[in-house]
Amino acid sequence: MTFVKAHGAGNDFVLLPDPDDKLELTRDLVRALCRPHVGLGADGVIRIAPGREGSGADAFMDYRNGDGSVAEMCGNGVRCVAKYLVDRRLVDGTEVLVDTRGGVKRVRCILGDTGRVELATVGMGEPVPLKVDLALDVEGHGPVHVTTISMGNPHAVVVVDDIDDAPVAALGPLLQRDPEFPEGTNVEFLAVLGRDLVRGRIWERGVGETLASGTGVAALAAAAHLLGLTDRTVTVAMPGGDLLVEWGEDDLTVTGPAVEVAAGDIDGAWLAGVMRR
Amino acid sequence: MTFVKAHGAGNDFVLLPDPDDKLELTRDLVRALCRPHVGLGADGVIRIAPGREGSGADAFMDYRNGDGSVAEMCGNGVRCVAKYLVDRRLVDGTEVLVDTRGGVKRVRCILGDTGRVELATVGMGEPVPLKVDLALDVEGHGPVHVTTISMGNPHAVVVVDDIDDAPVAALGPLLQRDPEFPEGTNVEFLAVLGRDLVRGRIWERGVGETLASGTGVAALAAAAHLLGLTDRTVTVAMPGGDLLVEWGEDDLTVTGPAVEVAAGDIDGAWLAGVMRR
Repeated sequence: MTFVKAHGAGNDFVLLPDPDDKLELTRDLVRALCRPHVGLGADGVIRIAPGREGSGADAFMDYRNGDGSVAEMCGNGVRCVAKYLVDRRLVDGTEVLVDTRGGVKRVRCILGDTGRVELATVGMGEPVPLKVDLALDVEGHGPVHVTTISMGNPHAVVVVDDIDDAPVAALGPLLQRDPEFPEGTNVEFLAVLGRDLVRGRIWERGVGETLASGTGVAALAAAAHLLGLTDRTVTVAMPGGDLLVEWGEDDLTVTGPAVEVAAGDIDGAWLAGVMRR
Repeated sequence: MTFVKAHGAGNDFVLLPDPDDKLELTRDLVRALCRPHVGLGADGVIRIAPGREGSGADAFMDYRNGDGSVAEMCGNGVRCVAKYLVDRRLVDGTEVLVDTRGGVKRVRCILGDTGRVELATVGMGEPVPLKVDLALDVEGHGPVHVTTISMGNPHAVVVVDDIDDAPVAALGPLLQRDPEFPEGTNVEFLAVLGRDLVRGRIWERGVGETLASGTGVAALAAAAHLLGLTDRTVTVAMPGGDLLVEWGEDDLTVTGPAVEVAAGDIDGAWLAGVMRR
């Protein structure tokens, strides 16, 4: 079984190329691959399969979270899939259609000096503003002002003065389970550095603080603009790297890095051990 | 640059084969490889170089900690190096002499059904008992009984009733900086399940809780025997796997798993990015 280890702004994946669409991703295999120390360690596994019939796509991104559950879409992952396909000339040119459980995504790749993909742009759909500058009474924190946005999944964005001191671990879990969000919410923190630059940190629902999340970065930039703090085009500096968000007429795109760290083969004996469990 | 990702009882390494002895392991490269998410993620990097002149060894284990610093010896790492050499028939037979900064280690490998190495035994040298059942007054914990042992490096071993509830994160850092240990100490916790079976957890000096440590497991088993709780041969069940410790006349050996997870190539563009920093 061949693999590629890749990341987008620190959100990392084990890519498993599966051109013949025959690889069975069991929950045990996904978990074992994602475990640090005794596996490869990653946030998720992406099986790169052929585009589903009628999708017109170049490939299907079969995304699994580290706990083995299925995910619809991952903005950072889809950039890595596009890089994989373009770098290996498995598609013509630098534009890739990636089929996901959340629909077909068009990814435009930008090549570096070496002729390989360094950045990629993906449309994340239109942000749906819900409540702008809503004051929530959070125990121990007093009134907390949040702007809530749907990117298909729920987000609550909080503006802070200093991103390094942002109460991510303290406020994140409290907001996540606030009665305002019956299904929970992702929580984003942002600090404004200018009309075109913010810094951000993300508390992912059910996960904790993460280095980056495509929908989180999109929601964060949309909230900053809705609050009148930034323009429609803004760079979001995240702990894992910078992402450029452009909120156009009918789509919001995120441009960010796609990095390949290593590629090779999963050990056969290790794999047999996982399958035997 | 080729690599192998391997672990021994959950203590994991990026192995870098360097048969021509020409690979320069910079601090930046080691740190970048060991970082999770944006690197490969590991506790350390091991360059497998030719045995140093006059050593008579099959290979030299050039071990670096995740922070880039040099380490003398690593019991879990040396088993992985032996597996690498035996599996690939780079030595004759199943016994390997591995040169380390802590001297030449003889490693005896045990093959599984597939003809590849599953377990390996390495001599860790003689434990030097220092103080048996010493009562230390630790703030907030009252008197804590420790048995101190040198395995070349310092260890303080604490016996507990329940290993799952052991105060590793609370007591580890307090004992590490206790005035009794001017240079700090590693701290091991053990719970006795029988004359030939204990469970263990390790607080590594300067690192925190780790899944396994060769010298830690050796010190832990030696302390259990010195306290009259176990025989000279004991299995130590660690969170990352089981290790068999045999304290003989003039050596203590540890037998444990050596597992290869994957092998391949580090991406050239990623490597160039690290080198440019």
